[in-house]
Amino acid sequence: MKYFFILFFITLSTTAQVSKESLNVMPWPQKIEFKSGNFTLNSSFKVNVTGQPDSRIFVATSNFLRRLDGRTGLFFKQGFVTSTNEFPDAQLQINCVKAGKIGLYEDESYQLIIESNVIAINASSDLGAMHGLETLLQLLQNNATSFYFPNVTITDMPRFTWRGLMIDAARHFQPVDVIKRNLDAMAAMKMNVFHWHLVDDQGWRIEMKKHKVLTNKASDGLFYTQEEIKGIVKYAADRGILVVPEIDVPGHASAILTAFPEIGSKVVTINKGSSETTQKASGLVTYSLERNAGIFTPTLDPSNPRTYQLLGEIFDEVCPLFPGKYFHIGGDENEGKDWDANPKIQEFMKKNKLDNNHELQTYFTMQLIPMLKKHQKELMGWEEIMTKNMSKEAIIHSWKGPNEGVAAGGSLIAAATNGYKTVLSNGFYVDLVQGVESHYLNDPMPKNASLSSEEKARILGGEATMWSELVTPETIDSRLWPRTAAIAERLWSDASVTDLASMRKRLKVISFRLEELGITHIRNKEVLLRNISNNQNTTALQTFSAVCEPLKIYSRNAGGTEYQMYSPFTLFADACTPDAEDALVFNGLVEEYVKNKEVSSEKEIALFLNKWIQNHKELEALSQNAPLVQPLLPLSNALHDLSEQLFYKLQKNSNYNASTAKELLEKCNSKAHADVELAVYLGLKKMVEL
Amino acid sequence: MKYFFILFFITLSTTAQVSKESLNVMPWPQKIEFKSGNFTLNSSFKVNVTGQPDSRIFVATSNFLRRLDGRTGLFFKQGFVTSTNEFPDAQLQINCVKAGKIGLYEDESYQLIIESNVIAINASSDLGAMHGLETLLQLLQNNATSFYFPNVTITDMPRFTWRGLMIDAARHFQPVDVIKRNLDAMAAMKMNVFHWHLVDDQGWRIEMKKHKVLTNKASDGLFYTQEEIKGIVKYAADRGILVVPEIDVPGHASAILTAFPEIGSKVVTINKGSSETTQKASGLVTYSLERNAGIFTPTLDPSNPRTYQLLGEIFDEVCPLFPGKYFHIGGDENEGKDWDANPKIQEFMKKNKLDNNHELQTYFTMQLIPMLKKHQKELMGWEEIMTKNMSKEAIIHSWKGPNEGVAAGGSLIAAATNGYKTVLSNGFYVDLVQGVESHYLNDPMPKNASLSSEEKARILGGEATMWSELVTPETIDSRLWPRTAAIAERLWSDASVTDLASMRKRLKVISFRLEELGITHIRNKEVLLRNISNNQNTTALQTFSAVCEPLKIYSRNAGGTEYQMYSPFTLFADACTPDAEDALVFNGLVEEYVKNKEVSSEKEIALFLNKWIQNHKELEALSQNAPLVQPLLPLSNALHDLSEQLFYKLQKNSNYNASTAKELLEKCNSKAHADVELAVYLGLKKMVEL
Repeated sequence: MKYFFILFFITLSTTAQVSKESLNVMPWPQKIEFKSGNFTLNSSFKVNVTGQPDSRIFVATSNFLRRLDGRTGLFFKQGFVTSTNEFPDAQLQINCVKAGKIGLYEDESYQLIIESNVIAINASSDLGAMHGLETLLQLLQNNATSFYFPNVTITDMPRFTWRGLMIDAARHFQPVDVIKRNLDAMAAMKMNVFHWHLVDDQGWRIEMKKHKVLTNKASDGLFYTQEEIKGIVKYAADRGILVVPEIDVPGHASAILTAFPEIGSKVVTINKGSSETTQKASGLVTYSLERNAGIFTPTLDPSNPRTYQLLGEIFDEVCPLFPGKYFHIGGDENEGKDWDANPKIQEFMKKNKLDNNHELQTYFTMQLIPMLKKHQKELMGWEEIMTKNMSKEAIIHSWKGPNEGVAAGGSLIAAATNGYKTVLSNGFYVDLVQGVESHYLNDPMPKNASLSSEEKARILGGEATMWSELVTPETIDSRLWPRTAAIAERLWSDASVTDLASMRKRLKVISFRLEELGITHIRNKEVLLRNISNNQNTTALQTFSAVCEPLKIYSRNAGGTEYQMYSPFTLFADACTPDAEDALVFNGLVEEYVKNKEVSSEKEIALFLNKWIQNHKELEALSQNAPLVQPLLPLSNALHDLSEQLFYKLQKNSNYNASTAKELLEKCNSKAHADVELAVYLGLKKMVEL
Repeated sequence: MKYFFILFFITLSTTAQVSKESLNVMPWPQKIEFKSGNFTLNSSFKVNVTGQPDSRIFVATSNFLRRLDGRTGLFFKQGFVTSTNEFPDAQLQINCVKAGKIGLYEDESYQLIIESNVIAINASSDLGAMHGLETLLQLLQNNATSFYFPNVTITDMPRFTWRGLMIDAARHFQPVDVIKRNLDAMAAMKMNVFHWHLVDDQGWRIEMKKHKVLTNKASDGLFYTQEEIKGIVKYAADRGILVVPEIDVPGHASAILTAFPEIGSKVVTINKGSSETTQKASGLVTYSLERNAGIFTPTLDPSNPRTYQLLGEIFDEVCPLFPGKYFHIGGDENEGKDWDANPKIQEFMKKNKLDNNHELQTYFTMQLIPMLKKHQKELMGWEEIMTKNMSKEAIIHSWKGPNEGVAAGGSLIAAATNGYKTVLSNGFYVDLVQGVESHYLNDPMPKNASLSSEEKARILGGEATMWSELVTPETIDSRLWPRTAAIAERLWSDASVTDLASMRKRLKVISFRLEELGITHIRNKEVLLRNISNNQNTTALQTFSAVCEPLKIYSRNAGGTEYQMYSPFTLFADACTPDAEDALVFNGLVEEYVKNKEVSSEKEIALFLNKWIQNHKELEALSQNAPLVQPLLPLSNALHDLSEQLFYKLQKNSNYNASTAKELLEKCNSKAHADVELAVYLGLKKMVEL
């Protein structure tokens, strides 16, 4: 009977028509047509490439075979794809008209046609074909015994040409393997720009042949060799990704000035007897690598010819490593304090009729344009570089928003109307560990601004930013993924694709599949929890972390000094992530219960409450042999006590005390413990207020 | 009352004297003296280095600080150690008399003295000091709220000077990060020789500037750049580890011959009309990269001067990358078939009075000695190179044993008596996925051979070998660790340290701590199981994998062709490991029960049986949406059925049927399913036979 049942089930599921709702494709394609039937995979599955593609398609198809074989365990007979037309009879036929160029405005479209016996990917270039391969992988379905693709026709292309991710390798250095696995994940999400933040107050990360002092003095030995950089640029290009390097100047310059104090703006005031003599005493000014997070004063001296000489030499060495057309020079968060205090700089401004620090910075930035032009590079900078005299050739990177006390994306619209090409990062700061929905609904194309089509065309797209003050190579993936995938969908898919429930459902599967590319966001959580638990059972920590989220925006390290760059990031807050799993479910249950008072919701809520009551006891027991668990106990205790109260409330038990519950609710709203907050607070609040 | 209890507990445990049994140090030191009291850690903990160490000590101490801070979350104020005598008042004082040289016979001893307010590491060189730092990390203790070191004095030094690990990067290429994290793990286990198997039939893995054809044709694009190699050699040296490269010749030569078919030994026979003409037709002979596992015929032609010219050029380019004194030239498993069939080679042998293939291979190997001497390198080779005319300068790598039909370590004794220095790898083949105890009890110093002290001194030590036919970068760590740590103890600690229970207990903690160095043996198991489960709950797979072990020795891929180098290694056998966790416990319980018939053992056995009965149902349910679970079901079903029978037996239930149980036992002994075997078989057998 058992076997009959299994067979029946198989038959049923194989013939079942796949619906749109059952697909976990992300970013969602522009157009899907469903047809009846499936393409069933077996070990004879082969790929054939035709047309005139770039050779990167062979890397991509070989990787595609390995990934698909890894998922299905079918032992494909084809090992590698190495040239065109190797297997004319292959079931998967990929045709690329031409070799894709790495950069903006390339045709990345593709058509994917799955029929019962043959699959075709047709694309203008290999870039589109590679997107088609990723979509195909995401379409994989299975029943109990076999794997198949549903018969569909997909026609797809990106909405924006700039679908970027920035990784800050300056604050915490991120080794080559971290960058490579994230390039793989980007490619899987059809992202095409990797913005590499290579220099900041906390470190210079580029090997320099001429000026070795930069890494000798300002890297702690943690930097990329030029060969590693070339290797990453090649690795990115093989995945259709443009690399945009960033050297942040004139502010964020502690690292550069640690190596070259003579081009800094700071002056020292020396007291001589009773009179005070202000003098430029560059020999006495020293800088050192910054260990804290924040905005610091060390700034290059725009009045010093040596500054430009050095920057010219740096660009001469760095530019050739990056074949792409764009170079990001930062330009952000320069408060100009050292400029104000430097008489020589003040004199320079007067002489050059520069009325304020903005104009002085523009003067500085304009000097960089020819240095970059020499290497066929266009200058890009954070929105602060957009001042009245800035060249229209510069690309404006819009980043400020409510956190900086200005309207979201204001600079984006200003840039587009002022004639600048522009990219949006405000709202895409994944390092701020906010929930996925805010990023997902953040559209680079402003809805209410009346922009001409020419102005709209200047909005190139958007870019997720992963600043690394609070992440190490072990934790960075869990801040990047899976939320960056939702941003990738915003940048690729139609503006109308905004269904949160669908996004969340698909994101779960996409998140799981990212493991195949080496992304560590899931596996490293267990590693952190094992360390916190002191190698005891981690179940209680898992349960608690399913309702806790790390403190958001800039609140975890508000002063910038609690965490130094070498502080431990092996704590509970590092194991927790935004979008805490149980919190979403619980808060949803409460919302439903408040509306409908259904018994089923009530029962599920009670289960959660009891889980947390029990879990606190388990955490207490765990803490007896695990000091790192101690900081969690006050918050867990508050959740325990309030859960007890709310359970009484549900049971209409006289032990329920409304004022006690209110007090406990405030304790559950605390941000004072273990750098986390209870993500079930809103649900708890509704229950208390009920 | 609760808080009183906690406080009481803390007081109790802080003052508790730490005993030898509570320490999880591995390898076990030569001498430990216990004293009363502890050194309690806090955020002001600092390190100071004095003496004349190599600068690698600063890398090591900075890493030490980060690791200790990561475990304790104390936020140490000291970020990096960069020069001697930075903090004369630091609590940890490290003194190194001199800079250690990377290589054999260096003084690696250290003394570690922990007192309540100060810790001292005194060592002849930084190499010893680094070992002391690893021991100190392993001594970390904690109670509920704080971390401390027990007051001890440890005097320690290695038993053998060669404590090696070989990683095969030819069969499955292992990227730089895999090598680096394993160098870290080696250093943590006080191992000092990394033998890097860089060339084999399946790939040439070294960038060659002169002969680019080697990587162009014979690497699938997977190789180390020369800069990466230098980086790894430096990384190893910073951890006190010598790198010994291997280019395997004259057999295992498919990759070399894919690039240079003209130096191969194969001849083709061409049929011309009715007569048969044998001729050397090198232009017609082509080779290709091997995709299977096994011993293959492609062999270099020792009669061809071009062979030596090319090898000379190769050594000229490769030797300078490795500053160490030793170069491994392989020399194993050359069956000489192509030599026998090649008339030109036969003629050459006659002319040079070489009576057989052994002598021909010796002739070949002897030509390499001056090529290596030119670069101040001594030749090392697998035991096959030890023939009567082989130079006594060569180091003999002993590897054959019962699997090859000879007595274990026979060549080791022969080498030592014949005047060769020698290293033992037989019995240390961790890739064969055998249990830890066999490796642990495998002593390089033969117990029953009567060797002179001079002969004994020629036994340099031992080396774990990790051949990579069946592992990928994702799975290799779980084949290496934690068992290699037990081998490290064999090679470092006194010969009398052989207590299996103590080793197993310590190994559990050591295994957990390896995660801190990035070793993925624990975390990647979950990744594999999630893939197998198709992102469903993995508990049932975890439970089943706790009693299953991958097929051992060469039985998983007996013909060498079931798994190609590009086959999927994402299967259940890849997630399983030797020393299956529950199997050891269950088999132990049964042994005890058979002896004493105690009710407590009986109850625990019954719990296991019921767990497996229930688990099979869960696996069946899981398999409905996970094709990769299907292959497990027959074995799980057998375990389910036999567990049911044995449960009846324990209950003296009349449903028990002895002959059914025997049949089921045979099914539980099957190696036909999912490439795993039931590691509880012996326990089950004893229960059936009871």
